[in-house]
Amino acid sequence: MTTMTDTAATSTTNATNAHFTDPLLGSNFKGYPRTQPPRLRSEVGAAGWNMLAGDLPLPLAMLKREALEHNLAWMQSRVREWGIDLAPHGKTSMSPQLFQRQLKAGAWGLTFATVTQLAVGVAAGVRRTLIANQVVSDEDLAGIQMLLRATAGLRIVFLVDSLAQLGLIEDWARRHPASVPFEVMIEIGVEGARTGCRTHEQAVTLATRLRASDAVKLVGIETYEGQGATGVSEPDTAYANTLMDRVEAIARHCDTHKLFETDEVLVSAGGSAIFDLVAGRLKPALGSPVRGLLRAGCYVTHDHGFYQRMVSALDERLGCQCGEGLRPAMEVWATVQSRPEPGLAILAVGKRDISFDLSMPVPIARAARGALEAQAVPAGWKITALNDQHAYLRWDASEEAEAPQVGDRVGLGISHPCTTFDKWHWMPIVENDYRVSDAVAMHF
Amino acid sequence: MTTMTDTAATSTTNATNAHFTDPLLGSNFKGYPRTQPPRLRSEVGAAGWNMLAGDLPLPLAMLKREALEHNLAWMQSRVREWGIDLAPHGKTSMSPQLFQRQLKAGAWGLTFATVTQLAVGVAAGVRRTLIANQVVSDEDLAGIQMLLRATAGLRIVFLVDSLAQLGLIEDWARRHPASVPFEVMIEIGVEGARTGCRTHEQAVTLATRLRASDAVKLVGIETYEGQGATGVSEPDTAYANTLMDRVEAIARHCDTHKLFETDEVLVSAGGSAIFDLVAGRLKPALGSPVRGLLRAGCYVTHDHGFYQRMVSALDERLGCQCGEGLRPAMEVWATVQSRPEPGLAILAVGKRDISFDLSMPVPIARAARGALEAQAVPAGWKITALNDQHAYLRWDASEEAEAPQVGDRVGLGISHPCTTFDKWHWMPIVENDYRVSDAVAMHF
Repeated sequence: MTTMTDTAATSTTNATNAHFTDPLLGSNFKGYPRTQPPRLRSEVGAAGWNMLAGDLPLPLAMLKREALEHNLAWMQSRVREWGIDLAPHGKTSMSPQLFQRQLKAGAWGLTFATVTQLAVGVAAGVRRTLIANQVVSDEDLAGIQMLLRATAGLRIVFLVDSLAQLGLIEDWARRHPASVPFEVMIEIGVEGARTGCRTHEQAVTLATRLRASDAVKLVGIETYEGQGATGVSEPDTAYANTLMDRVEAIARHCDTHKLFETDEVLVSAGGSAIFDLVAGRLKPALGSPVRGLLRAGCYVTHDHGFYQRMVSALDERLGCQCGEGLRPAMEVWATVQSRPEPGLAILAVGKRDISFDLSMPVPIARAARGALEAQAVPAGWKITALNDQHAYLRWDASEEAEAPQVGDRVGLGISHPCTTFDKWHWMPIVENDYRVSDAVAMHF
Repeated sequence: MTTMTDTAATSTTNATNAHFTDPLLGSNFKGYPRTQPPRLRSEVGAAGWNMLAGDLPLPLAMLKREALEHNLAWMQSRVREWGIDLAPHGKTSMSPQLFQRQLKAGAWGLTFATVTQLAVGVAAGVRRTLIANQVVSDEDLAGIQMLLRATAGLRIVFLVDSLAQLGLIEDWARRHPASVPFEVMIEIGVEGARTGCRTHEQAVTLATRLRASDAVKLVGIETYEGQGATGVSEPDTAYANTLMDRVEAIARHCDTHKLFETDEVLVSAGGSAIFDLVAGRLKPALGSPVRGLLRAGCYVTHDHGFYQRMVSALDERLGCQCGEGLRPAMEVWATVQSRPEPGLAILAVGKRDISFDLSMPVPIARAARGALEAQAVPAGWKITALNDQHAYLRWDASEEAEAPQVGDRVGLGISHPCTTFDKWHWMPIVENDYRVSDAVAMHF
């Protein structure tokens, strides 16, 4: 690689570091008060703003501080009890400040989906990283080597699931003889699901070839159980056990045949839906020391939709009492802009502002114009559709007396944190009374 | 409003103007080459990059220059023939460079969905603006007044559809006696659809109250026909005619009763699906001069999905020969990262990168690793699902011999431009051989 390339990498990393530590927020970011001058992220908490007081324009996505901190601590306690570590998926939030909170809470490292995401994590100070994906292109392989060279103490481990992929990596390495071997985990997949070796034989053949290659070092084994999750304990348990049996058998084979080239074998699984069912299987008894890594990402804010449904079964399995388990920490508030016909209100919030991919947002609170306290909403309130910039709030005919008025504010719970985070450049962190006490930035 | 507020508004506008004219792009934006130093947007075209040569990391969304320029000119020709003007919806792209191209092509102004979006348009130099939405909150009303005060020659017109909304505006105006009257259009809606007055009587009552209010000036009438579009000419024509009959009757009433307070009545409609069916109705014969304003936004890039299906009926109505009508101008390219089982390839592109709300992306082209020319894909290739960061490409068993290989690149057409634009901070503009000749930035 050329000197220009190295200079570019270093200067970009340095430039972004400054932004990431404490970026300047301003009204060019939606949700920031238009009547206020730009402020450093760290100074937003001192501004004295309150969402319910109308200090910030709606729609606005926000994080509830208590629930956020509870979730960070709760998940860290779980992995400690399970004797494993957390490498939470950073793609959920892509927020340097949340990465730092996750590391401070005790996370071993962070997981990312792409090299571009990884570079954001590195700029935010993350040093142990997984890419829970196959890396195949020249540009991405070069990007990894560039980050490794530019960043002292950085570790990057990515996934391999085919001889074809290994061939591309070896081809790149031949053309770049000064590069260091890539650290890789072999991925085990499930027929009909996403990536990963489908059979024991495929995995063993691939692991043997990885061991023989100078371009890579096999340091672990990985799978993703989330695609099989139904939220019903019996089938989910059977699914996870079958998958983890396969992972363990392949890990044993690699261990016995000295295919791992590492002092500590990484064994990783774990989305955010049924992570308790794989957590206990991440430290199989091998000849080498093993580090189990859970990659859950959505736990950080949890939700009022898909993950709440999934995790209610998990709470039962863990025997969590109400409030002890994960708590929804993200809300999106919006204004009622029209009540065009009985039973229908249109909120000024849409696909540009809130998740809609797994299920519709859920009305959870309301506040009349000027009200400084949020109230519960009638049970029949539901969001039935979203357009790009509008949401359709409907209610039962029996609830017409409690119908929202034009100008009222409605708080929505979300379903799937990832696809709300990616619609905002920043979010305030609020207390339970919606006073803004801090803020985070996102880098998608 | 305080002096601090005015200073903030001015300084923010000036600060953003510099960014918007020619922002610095760098590898902190996904899709920008990691091995390259940051460049001004205007200098990207001179860098000599080619997507197919692997100069930019995938996934990457891009605009095809010829198709883009064709669409800009085509739509402008249509509105000229119809004797109306274009105020294209800026929420589609939120790109200052595309706004400027739209204005240069002859657009009268731009439309936005929110005050925050409008502020981006103003910073990009737009001076005639519609907000195709009800404005109701103190913060948004204050934001409009702030922009009007800070920007010479700026015009902002927004929608009103209820006495309740007018009450909120009047309440705000009473508390801000130095403010200028808001320019508003009355919105006509359809039972079961989104916002807007449902009946002639509602609209007439509201218009009469708007005329009597010092807080607002009624300058026009607006509707949105897009929610009734089916893509079938006969019902779409009937739907549009019925709606526009209502709009015209209300416009006549307002004209006869001197409810408009303007030298030129604005009459606006038009999404991107059946705009030809309303275009001819935007200059009703009134006592005052009328300016018809079409607000289509998605025409700028068109698509390979929802709008292609909708507009094929429109092409028939207009008698367009192939290629004369709108052309799809946006593609998203991605790398094959895994071929885990027969008939399935996983592409490294997902919900974070491409629209999925109206229909799945469509494989339209392929290029083997290293190939400098794109080729057509077999007819059976389809994207069957997206995860956050992955796409599932499947094909018919008969096409197995033409199956993609790990490392191949696949070009995807999109469905619904709005929800791909909002996933990127920038996009290169490419020639037909995928040489990068220019770039645009987005501000969501």
